[in-house]
Amino acid sequence: MIQQIDHLGIAVKDLKESIEYYETALGLHCHGQEEVESQKVKTAFFDAGGVHIELLEPTSEDSPIAKFLEKNGEGIHHIAYRVDDIDGQLKKASDAGVRLIHETPIDGAANKLVAFLHPKSTHGVLTEFCQSK
Amino acid sequence: MIQQIDHLGIAVKDLKESIEYYETALGLHCHGQEEVESQKVKTAFFDAGGVHIELLEPTSEDSPIAKFLEKNGEGIHHIAYRVDDIDGQLKKASDAGVRLIHETPIDGAANKLVAFLHPKSTHGVLTEFCQSK
Repeated sequence: MIQQIDHLGIAVKDLKESIEYYETALGLHCHGQEEVESQKVKTAFFDAGGVHIELLEPTSEDSPIAKFLEKNGEGIHHIAYRVDDIDGQLKKASDAGVRLIHETPIDGAANKLVAFLHPKSTHGVLTEFCQSK
Repeated sequence: MIQQIDHLGIAVKDLKESIEYYETALGLHCHGQEEVESQKVKTAFFDAGGVHIELLEPTSEDSPIAKFLEKNGEGIHHIAYRVDDIDGQLKKASDAGVRLIHETPIDGAANKLVAFLHPKSTHGVLTEFCQSK
């Protein structure tokens, strides 16, 4: 079952400038930064009342985020739903005809299992399920 | 101050098909539908652990959502933050150099005051502040 929205991933060109925007213009507090080598991104986290904003800057030209920025420019990249049974949630989506990017969950940041659904079968929204290990 | 993320607005071509996707593939429950004539949209709401998903289908070719769909296809349209002082929040953003779409709040759906920040000055994210009246 979906418990809540865990975080929103937002693709940015420059993490430092974007952190300044979120802190100064919105008044949110950056509570952590992390480099995720497998995804070739640097990330920064903000807490907006229990839902996290995750800014994503590519560290390489072949990062999925670099490709997203090239095609779309800066903007919202994905929605991540926190679930209590990631395998069951993937089966439910698959049974409903959704194309899965990950048939089985992979390791994500912050000690979580994650899996993505393809935006071509989710009405345009790159959708992540995540579950704490 | 930002209290939490109130909702995510998602542009869709066909509300009925999209409701079916959110209910069947994700297991979320649609708890309301509303037509907002001023924005020329039909909307459907889902509760994902306190944050609402708001699907938006245009009811007219000159709806802002029709223009968004034409340019981007289906996808996430905006993030709305619930705030406790919408005027102060707009002033904070303006003081930080953000371009405001609404200098003062306007009436939104569900008996709220709302105001939008321009995505050109928010690192690509159409951003809404909302406050209950």
